[in-house]
Amino acid sequence: MTWVPNQWYVAAWDSEVDRAPLARTICGEPIMLYRRFDRSPVAMRDACPHRLLPLSMGIKEGDDIRCRYHGLLLDSCGQVKEMPLKADRLNPAVAVQTYPVVERHRFLWVWVGEAAKADPDLVPDLWPCSAEGWAFDGGYYHLDCDYRLAIDNLMDLTHETYTHQGSIGQMEILEAPIVTRAVGNEVFVERWMPDIDAPPFWRDALRRDGNVDRWQICQFIPPSSVIIDVGVAPVGSGATPESHDQGVRGFVIDALTPESENSCHYFWGMSRNFDTADTGFTARFRAQQGGVFLEDVEILEAQQRSINANPDLKLRGYNIDEGGVKSRAIIKRMIRAQEEPAPEAKERIAAE
Amino acid sequence: MTWVPNQWYVAAWDSEVDRAPLARTICGEPIMLYRRFDRSPVAMRDACPHRLLPLSMGIKEGDDIRCRYHGLLLDSCGQVKEMPLKADRLNPAVAVQTYPVVERHRFLWVWVGEAAKADPDLVPDLWPCSAEGWAFDGGYYHLDCDYRLAIDNLMDLTHETYTHQGSIGQMEILEAPIVTRAVGNEVFVERWMPDIDAPPFWRDALRRDGNVDRWQICQFIPPSSVIIDVGVAPVGSGATPESHDQGVRGFVIDALTPESENSCHYFWGMSRNFDTADTGFTARFRAQQGGVFLEDVEILEAQQRSINANPDLKLRGYNIDEGGVKSRAIIKRMIRAQEEPAPEAKERIAAE
Amino acid sequence: MTWVPNQWYVAAWDSEVDRAPLARTICGEPIMLYRRFDRSPVAMRDACPHRLLPLSMGIKEGDDIRCRYHGLLLDSCGQVKEMPLKADRLNPAVAVQTYPVVERHRFLWVWVGEAAKADPDLVPDLWPCSAEGWAFDGGYYHLDCDYRLAIDNLMDLTHETYTHQGSIGQMEILEAPIVTRAVGNEVFVERWMPDIDAPPFWRDALRRDGNVDRWQICQFIPPSSVIIDVGVAPVGSGATPESHDQGVRGFVIDALTPESENSCHYFWGMSRNFDTADTGFTARFRAQQGGVFLEDVEILEAQQRSINANPDLKLRGYNIDEGGVKSRAIIKRMIRAQEEPAPEAKERIAAE
Repeated sequence: MTWVPNQWYVAAWDSEVDRAPLARTICGEPIMLYRRFDRSPVAMRDACPHRLLPLSMGIKEGDDIRCRYHGLLLDSCGQVKEMPLKADRLNPAVAVQTYPVVERHRFLWVWVGEAAKADPDLVPDLWPCSAEGWAFDGGYYHLDCDYRLAIDNLMDLTHETYTHQGSIGQMEILEAPIVTRAVGNEVFVERWMPDIDAPPFWRDALRRDGNVDRWQICQFIPPSSVIIDVGVAPVGSGATPESHDQGVRGFVIDALTPESENSCHYFWGMSRNFDTADTGFTARFRAQQGGVFLEDVEILEAQQRSINANPDLKLRGYNIDEGGVKSRAIIKRMIRAQEEPAPEAKERIAAE
Repeated sequence: MTWVPNQWYVAAWDSEVDRAPLARTICGEPIMLYRRFDRSPVAMRDACPHRLLPLSMGIKEGDDIRCRYHGLLLDSCGQVKEMPLKADRLNPAVAVQTYPVVERHRFLWVWVGEAAKADPDLVPDLWPCSAEGWAFDGGYYHLDCDYRLAIDNLMDLTHETYTHQGSIGQMEILEAPIVTRAVGNEVFVERWMPDIDAPPFWRDALRRDGNVDRWQICQFIPPSSVIIDVGVAPVGSGATPESHDQGVRGFVIDALTPESENSCHYFWGMSRNFDTADTGFTARFRAQQGGVFLEDVEILEAQQRSINANPDLKLRGYNIDEGGVKSRAIIKRMIRAQEEPAPEAKERIAAE
Repeated sequence: MTWVPNQWYVAAWDSEVDRAPLARTICGEPIMLYRRFDRSPVAMRDACPHRLLPLSMGIKEGDDIRCRYHGLLLDSCGQVKEMPLKADRLNPAVAVQTYPVVERHRFLWVWVGEAAKADPDLVPDLWPCSAEGWAFDGGYYHLDCDYRLAIDNLMDLTHETYTHQGSIGQMEILEAPIVTRAVGNEVFVERWMPDIDAPPFWRDALRRDGNVDRWQICQFIPPSSVIIDVGVAPVGSGATPESHDQGVRGFVIDALTPESENSCHYFWGMSRNFDTADTGFTARFRAQQGGVFLEDVEILEAQQRSINANPDLKLRGYNIDEGGVKSRAIIKRMIRAQEEPAPEAKERIAAE
């Protein structure tokens, strides 16, 4: 397996799921999502327990879902309410698997693994998507590649210069030194560019000319999100790598969710603390960001095809890849930790 | 293998096959069909014995077929008549496999298995397709699903209510009790609805108002056909589940032929004993039936995809599925019977 | 493996490759081709040594290629010139595999196998493509079939009568006897048709009426080319199977290059010694030849599909197939010779 089990994964944008079912495969499992009348989200296996027809093809009846094949009726907890023949006695063992689901930070998160372990406190903290004083919007792409290739991509912004040379690429990025460090299960790749001429986008956001301190801090949050803290502050305003709310700031949000070993869902967006009420800017920026990220889609899918076509070759890690390498190491460690028996269990076995 | 060997399977409608070759894969074997001048059908492996080019791409010369690659000429018994170089001596060992083929009940049936065992008396008795006093017409669909899913579908009409809710679905069907029984290698699922208000279609067929006795009797005929006896008779006319020719009656005809483990050919139609000379009605009904069966195509192909996508889940059988369950059990038993040595053979082995 | 390793294979027409990269998979290996400023060709593995993005998506900088993902710069010998971060120390071990490549006879030839063994003298001698006094032109098709099926096709012209019956097929071809012989690693299939009425194409080329001696001599040149020597000479002009430059003559050129086990590249053309300055004729003939060869594409791809669909059937070799059978035997022998240890090695093993 290439992903960590027993984790929350983004299954959809809050805006994607309404009363009608949405079908999406998460970590290899076909799942159907919809909302109850009270707007609370439901996630269940997208297969009728009777003959496996996708429930997402079914008929919503209030909060229940009726299979379109033989009419089996399931409530929103996955429990049977009517057998195909109404006369038949309800068999309470008839049920469809449901998944713990939480709505937070503008996304619906589904727990993949043992439901008993699902703790909402473990939802990755994408706070910029929902915090007061911040404006957040974004979009969704389907990627025909291993989700880890997308994480590699985001944990190293060197690629901006070439992949995005027609849009946001800039040579200065290559000249700034980077500092990479792992903190617990997170990884940070930091680029601090003191006293430089602000690029047009940021000068406009700041609404003034003059040199700035600029930063780009990529943060890997397991199991599969990346937040990139970007922005500028006027020189001398006291901004430091540790604290920099003096100027204008944004968080590029990237949540990757495995669909299969070779495909994934990409939820992306940008949260900002400037011009937050300017809905026109929000829409224009979203369109622009979507265009830039399409350049990544092209690269990532070509990379996956090339990996498949060159089975004798290996991905290499250079200095710039340290962020991705460390992130993958964390993913691997977390997968292993799930596979191995817990230490106490081991002791007990040894004692017998 | 999912189908029974040494059986007759419908390969085509009589109207599909003419002097020009038709290519169709039956039970995994590419087969070419055409008619001789005397209209008798020919079925042969669709591969030239020389370099395997499909013979269906070839050139008909009278009743013979000439390969379009190097011109090898085969007669309609599959025997070579000319080598690629006319000057070359005929090698009588050059031949293509032919298949026993019989035209009956408006279909061409091909024997899949050992040709020596092909007995025309074993052709499934789809008598309503060819009996005096009955009008029969229908169509063909290709299904991307295991043929047994289509048999399940037809042996349980509960699905009409939901799958066909936009067309022929009716709630009353769910309220009538069903009786399921196996008789030899056949299975019957019977629904007898006495003294009910006739639905519009049947009232019109009967040409009178008033309550009727209505029936739906699904019959599985191995290896892979289903006939559904449907109709109504005026209350008090003496119709019984065993004998009911007092009113108007039809037989829905369904012949499924495996193409591969995950795809099949679906030959469907309706035979009726009323308005048999009304060709306009025949055409209108055929179009309507085709539309209804397309709703099944959508369901069956989605079901197959879902089965593939949820390998950890199993099809469940409830009461309504008894007809399909029993039919599948017969198919399994017939496959096993072909695989096992005959009893005498077993004894002989034991004796040695 | 179905092809001979350690051989030169045509990778492209000279006209297909310019300063911009061309991507083509040769014998299973994704390869990128381009020309340096001095027009010399470059062939390298189409995968950046860093993260495997196809280099053919990259940016040419002079004779170098820069990966479009992170900007790794490689010179035209495959050696790194700049790491993704300019500041990073060059790691001289970073390199991409290059392939020996030679431009000869209007084609770019790539050596597949051990580079140390690549000897330009081993390039198959397709001299009619580049000789003084001959005019050569042609085209390219991608074939979804094993390249050996195309060689079979070309080493037996019997198929012209049927496959090309709408274009160049002629019955006379079937009546002329053929002589097949292997000479070293080459195979010749010779048809000599003395004193016949010239077909319209050749009468026109000869610019006179009257009977001619006509020939068709197919020559297999390993590992995967076929040249067909065709033409006519006036009766009595002294033309013999061994020497026949008295009339008008052409060489049909066919170079097949495996892409995968089930697909290949087909480079085809015609070289002639008449009307060599008539560029209008060259263009008209190229269009006509392309049309005829499309008839072969249809046959060959259908044959491959049929081979896959009929795994229980085998290709048969009749008299007419002797040329193809002998050519395949040579290919097999050459593959084996590469697999087996050299005789000295065997002795050494035996002695131990």
